[in-house]
Amino acid sequence: MIKNPLILVTNDDGISAPGIRALISVMKQLGDVVVVAPDSPQSAMGHAITINNTLFINKINIDDDVEAEYSCSGTPVDCVKLAVNEILKRKPDLCVSGVNHGSNSSINVIYSGTMSAAVEAGIEGIPAIGFSLLDYAWNADFESIKSYIKSITLEVLNKGLPQGVVLNVNFPKLKEKDIKGVKICRQAKAFWQESFDKRVTPQGKDYYWLTGEFVNPDEGEDTDEWALKNGYISVVPVQFDLTAYHAINKLNSYNFNK
Amino acid sequence: MIKNPLILVTNDDGISAPGIRALISVMKQLGDVVVVAPDSPQSAMGHAITINNTLFINKINIDDDVEAEYSCSGTPVDCVKLAVNEILKRKPDLCVSGVNHGSNSSINVIYSGTMSAAVEAGIEGIPAIGFSLLDYAWNADFESIKSYIKSITLEVLNKGLPQGVVLNVNFPKLKEKDIKGVKICRQAKAFWQESFDKRVTPQGKDYYWLTGEFVNPDEGEDTDEWALKNGYISVVPVQFDLTAYHAINKLNSYNFNK
Repeated sequence: MIKNPLILVTNDDGISAPGIRALISVMKQLGDVVVVAPDSPQSAMGHAITINNTLFINKINIDDDVEAEYSCSGTPVDCVKLAVNEILKRKPDLCVSGVNHGSNSSINVIYSGTMSAAVEAGIEGIPAIGFSLLDYAWNADFESIKSYIKSITLEVLNKGLPQGVVLNVNFPKLKEKDIKGVKICRQAKAFWQESFDKRVTPQGKDYYWLTGEFVNPDEGEDTDEWALKNGYISVVPVQFDLTAYHAINKLNSYNFNK
Repeated sequence: MIKNPLILVTNDDGISAPGIRALISVMKQLGDVVVVAPDSPQSAMGHAITINNTLFINKINIDDDVEAEYSCSGTPVDCVKLAVNEILKRKPDLCVSGVNHGSNSSINVIYSGTMSAAVEAGIEGIPAIGFSLLDYAWNADFESIKSYIKSITLEVLNKGLPQGVVLNVNFPKLKEKDIKGVKICRQAKAFWQESFDKRVTPQGKDYYWLTGEFVNPDEGEDTDEWALKNGYISVVPVQFDLTAYHAINKLNSYNFNK
């Protein structure tokens, strides 16, 4: 293993969220930690970046045993870009993102700021892991998952990750003793069935809140949803080459030319 | 082909951008058009959705020959969700997004609001195409690409698309007569080399603008970057199952358990 690895920690719930504090407490045992995280919640920001606005960085101090902490006015992806290109003296050996308050399994990976930060690190050639706990509560039980965060991170520090791949790790909402272990999975083919909550402003104008129900018709026992429902921690290898290679032959039979 | 297909049109440059107007002008020849697009520019928003804020929809009228037009206060993905679940009476037969002012080839697919709108439609089971022109100018030449937009869209209306796949179509900045045709491609393995432009506010506080240079070390002649550089329109089939299937076996040899 690399001696004193440099570990970049970020998240999407904001730098003061209990989830990132739990993640920092584990990473401090494994290397030199620099935290660069959003100054406010950035959930569901996907892979958004800030190109039409300014970015501010503030050096802050929440945790005493880390190298440095910075809050940033941008998105989770902005945080990674700023860390790698502006803040850190060298490329980090690892980037971890989370622990997210709530699931990023299945199709949620695509909306998730937590996972987009990890993916951005992956694009920049840094081994990266996103961690999420299936509990939206602010006071969720992060203690029960710390030993697994440590074992998963240690293995990645020791062995690296295949090129072009980052890990999407989701933890079931269970006590440590009830967790059955880790399963490598594929992303379940699920989706959100939206229903908008329509309301009226005091001035009489219609507006909407996005709400929805998660629908999973995919019964595969190799999916992250199956693993989580059955007491396992799900680990999905995620790639950022979005090419659907299997569709290339089929599309070559189309006549797209005028 | 479906008779009078219902076509949802959206974009990320905002509902009044010339690119979406060009797209609407072609779609009007092919079916019944409903436009639901952001009320302001939403470039680089990735797959962001609005969960911590309200959403407003305004019925507007820019083009006379469409069924209806709505501007929306949210992101491109919000527009698709609102269109499908709140505005349209039935699921559209096709969703087209763009024409984006600027490239969405290679890794740009992941940051792009244009492509995220198409991907969202795909997740909801709607055949979808994102169109982009390699010209950031507001007065870019969309006339030269209209015949190709029509031929590509017609073929998708006729034949559908493989399940779980949407199309990322990029046009080179060329006169119509100089375009060599359409190539089905893979996403080039390229990235952005960021450099932040650091400035100081009138009050003395540091701030940053994200800037960067696109770096493409991938010389493959099957990539979108190669096609575009050589005068072709690139069509990349894009998937939203992000699982890196090729990495599952390798990861099963890791010991993630504590």
